[in-house]
Amino acid sequence: MNASDAKGLPIGVFDSGVGGLTVLKAIREEMMGEDLVYLGDTARLPYGTKSPASISRYACQATALLQQSNIKLLVVACNTASAVALDALREQMAPLPVIGVVEPGATAAVAARPRGRHLVLATEATVRLHAYRKALLDLDADAAVTELACEMLVALAEEGWNDGKIAESIVQRYLADMDPDWRHPDSVILGCTHFPLLRDTFASVFDDNVSIVDSATTTAVAARTLLADLELENDQAGDGSLQLLATDGATRFARVGGQFLGHDLSADDVTLVDL
Amino acid sequence: MNASDAKGLPIGVFDSGVGGLTVLKAIREEMMGEDLVYLGDTARLPYGTKSPASISRYACQATALLQQSNIKLLVVACNTASAVALDALREQMAPLPVIGVVEPGATAAVAARPRGRHLVLATEATVRLHAYRKALLDLDADAAVTELACEMLVALAEEGWNDGKIAESIVQRYLADMDPDWRHPDSVILGCTHFPLLRDTFASVFDDNVSIVDSATTTAVAARTLLADLELENDQAGDGSLQLLATDGATRFARVGGQFLGHDLSADDVTLVDL
Repeated sequence: MNASDAKGLPIGVFDSGVGGLTVLKAIREEMMGEDLVYLGDTARLPYGTKSPASISRYACQATALLQQSNIKLLVVACNTASAVALDALREQMAPLPVIGVVEPGATAAVAARPRGRHLVLATEATVRLHAYRKALLDLDADAAVTELACEMLVALAEEGWNDGKIAESIVQRYLADMDPDWRHPDSVILGCTHFPLLRDTFASVFDDNVSIVDSATTTAVAARTLLADLELENDQAGDGSLQLLATDGATRFARVGGQFLGHDLSADDVTLVDL
Repeated sequence: MNASDAKGLPIGVFDSGVGGLTVLKAIREEMMGEDLVYLGDTARLPYGTKSPASISRYACQATALLQQSNIKLLVVACNTASAVALDALREQMAPLPVIGVVEPGATAAVAARPRGRHLVLATEATVRLHAYRKALLDLDADAAVTELACEMLVALAEEGWNDGKIAESIVQRYLADMDPDWRHPDSVILGCTHFPLLRDTFASVFDDNVSIVDSATTTAVAARTLLADLELENDQAGDGSLQLLATDGATRFARVGGQFLGHDLSADDVTLVDL
């Protein structure tokens, strides 16, 4: 297939659940003409507490399903899968491109705060693999990095308790266990797709001059740049289509996913698939 | 096989993760001579937010694996699986017996508070199926029942934040969304195996005279009674053996599971299996 045929193909976006809809939303805002297929592996979420071998296997199965839709680009919207499985997914998708969320997030943080002190909030699996630490130090050898696993914040965002006293107390409690020096970082990197929902809480807990960095927008910009470089941008008139796939629980996907996507969803908007 | 051969066979205990270790602990205390095989389906937890079809399929696969160990009794230590899949599991295990945690929990609550007002705290799936409401009203037509889904409490227990201000605030917030009449129930039924860890928090939030009912001990007593009725009790001298199986993450299983079981575990104590 030549590039001009491939332009009309969809972009695949993969996440362990609904959190990646924050990335999908940014991609739609950045590239309105693109057709999008989103797959949330809701039957097996959360990935953040699972082993690297399982995460990698799940991510490869999800990618195989998206490949059946002839995607021209895979965006791995899940931080944990990006941290664990990006090389395996690149091999599986080759020669077509794959973008994860870790590198764009790290790039944005280093751009905002060169030689900065970066605090990464993420899941247990992402922290254990030091994906952000490696990406940040590759980009800026003078950066300082601390990574903090905060699983409770995932539950908070899923429950929709995004701001208020409970959310603030939970963030404060995680910080209380850290070296006091790290309570005043230059940047706070939201290393889990659920965490942008808690942005107001982070803003009230951290110093006013902190940069709060999420990967959603920077990943969307990276995807647009990559497609432009490869001459694979969809130049159709009007808005692209959106297909939402999930491996379990269309009703819950619609209810929780609506707040990530920023508009109401119904269970009929979600197609159940089996991996 | 006759009953005297079967006496020496193990009891199988199944849960979606580590929470069921509270039930396993109660069974060991109740029947020290029994050999036990515990399977935590950690690769696919949590069950509480998944669809009934998926939960049922997972529970049947887990039971099939335990059947390879020639278990004489299956204890379904997961409230969600008990609520969703008990009939399917009984069919699969027949003629051998299966005990879930919902009926013993309901029985204990009705015994403690006849014609009482019972508040059931559980996962989304358990609430949606009204398993406790049905079991309570079957036992006591004059009972009043309200069921409340509280997913944040699962995350709290997994994080080990079992008491203190944050745990209390989260319980208070769930109660604040309820009809004010229900903030002072006669019994609080802990309808998720994670929740016994939060017992002190419940005791501080609810009235002093409330009965806090968990299924672990009553399920263990029901299992002992059933084995005695069937003449299947293991009469070996000394303590029975314990085998711990998990579908993912032996290290995390050991770390989180230790606090449920009440003593330290190492990853070497846990055998990984594939369903």
